Amino acid sequence: MKIAYLGPEKTFTEQITRKIFPEDELIPLQPIRNVIMAVEDRKLTYGVVPLENLYNGYVINTLDTLTKCKDTKITREVSMKITHCLGALKNHDKIERIYSKSDALEQCDEYLFKNFPDAKTISVSSTAEAITYLSKNDVYNFTAAAIASKEALLKSGLEIIAGDICPNNITRFAILERNRTIQTGDDKTIITIHPIERDKPGVLADCLNILRSQHINLECIFSRPDRIGNYYFYAELNGHKDEERVKRALTSIEYSLNPKSENHRVVNVLGSFPNSHWKENK
Amino acid sequence: MKIAYLGPEKTFTEQITRKIFPEDELIPLQPIRNVIMAVEDRKLTYGVVPLENLYNGYVINTLDTLTKCKDTKITREVSMKITHCLGALKNHDKIERIYSKSDALEQCDEYLFKNFPDAKTISVSSTAEAITYLSKNDVYNFTAAAIASKEALLKSGLEIIAGDICPNNITRFAILERNRTIQTGDDKTIITIHPIERDKPGVLADCLNILRSQHINLECIFSRPDRIGNYYFYAELNGHKDEERVKRALTSIEYSLNPKSENHRVVNVLGSFPNSHWKENK
Repeated sequence: MKIAYLGPEKTFTEQITRKIFPEDELIPLQPIRNVIMAVEDRKLTYGVVPLENLYNGYVINTLDTLTKCKDTKITREVSMKITHCLGALKNHDKIERIYSKSDALEQCDEYLFKNFPDAKTISVSSTAEAITYLSKNDVYNFTAAAIASKEALLKSGLEIIAGDICPNNITRFAILERNRTIQTGDDKTIITIHPIERDKPGVLADCLNILRSQHINLECIFSRPDRIGNYYFYAELNGHKDEERVKRALTSIEYSLNPKSENHRVVNVLGSFPNSHWKENK
Repeated sequence: MKIAYLGPEKTFTEQITRKIFPEDELIPLQPIRNVIMAVEDRKLTYGVVPLENLYNGYVINTLDTLTKCKDTKITREVSMKITHCLGALKNHDKIERIYSKSDALEQCDEYLFKNFPDAKTISVSSTAEAITYLSKNDVYNFTAAAIASKEALLKSGLEIIAGDICPNNITRFAILERNRTIQTGDDKTIITIHPIERDKPGVLADCLNILRSQHINLECIFSRPDRIGNYYFYAELNGHKDEERVKRALTSIEYSLNPKSENHRVVNVLGSFPNSHWKENK
């Protein structure tokens, strides 16, 4: 089978995709939209994209693109520990510059602020490129360091100055498929709620009260401006879309926000899948 | 006066900072934490950092770092239209590769997917670097394009293939200061709510019901995992923290989530400031 994943190669997304699909052909695509649309347009069966990082938050593009899909849903989530290390040339001097991709620099900023308050951080396109900078034969590089995985740093002959400088850094990835769902009894559902009426106060409180009345716990929620002056919401809730109490709650939210059943669904399900509880996939 | 802003130079953040502080000395710092901490540590008076982009969502690092500050608050928000254009060499061939920084590629992905479905997108460290790639004297570059601002593309002698390919793209920036606030009658307040008890169901519904009871409209909300298995919330609400109804609501939320007044504040204000309503700063 052919599996689409968010490229380029040699990233954490490739690593997790390889783990889940050890025997299959992996196709790196960019950006996120192209991975998702490859599944939606029936070009490929599965897609793998990042969904949320504990430090950087939700990957908005994944959610926004899924919202526009008819058939493609999240059918599984897998979590992966992201271990960033700081590496430099052997016999390096005092570190004055630190290279990495901007996400990694942001994730490690607490460590860098404490330990290298005077070093300049320089964002490059990938952790691989950061290593390339340091590996150049240049005296200047004895005052530079790079943030990347331990394996990548060691492979390039660099010395690890500090390991796991961004602890508890986990990324959840979404596995996408068309028109399939499994129910395990410990599931989650991601929905969007896009109210029709602008600025109706208390819409969100109403939705949450409905969920509570059905004893459905909310794992996460966030609102997004919809670019025409209104807001919509993403919510992650405990339970499967085919469970009775979830069905009742979603129907009730739809009716309460869209009583005339206008030609527009207010509530949309982006996927129901087993809850990984941010536990690493073994 | 010296003003810290999120560097590097020649970015949209520098542009807006120059607009707000035309006469002052601007100091580019990276990453976001260093800008905020320069204000918190009294090294500089003002800081300017991105707060939210209509396509990419909230800048989590700005909010998470502000949450840890004692004195530094958002005292003003300014919005700026981000105009991305597609440029290529004059007499270019069929475009096969598109260079830009990853944020810009993500923001323009709808346009790219429609108009260049077969082109490969390549993320580089900045829009300036994307232009540098194209400007190299290389036959290969006649099949490449770059996403950057119109001004930057034209300055480098490139031809604009398409203008404003990511419409309604606005970034809100936060101006930071220590211990100051102004009240205009049309203000917003950003708060964090970090409940003490884990997994208490309906916490958020309770908070929203309290806000509604004080006729306070919620502009945005989102939850974040706190890396020890619990969640906290960011909310943006209409009203100034010194208005009676806002004070009543925040006190009431604090009391309802922290009835024993444990040594930990559940509700924290990150700033009260005039509401810009995503209108561009003139």
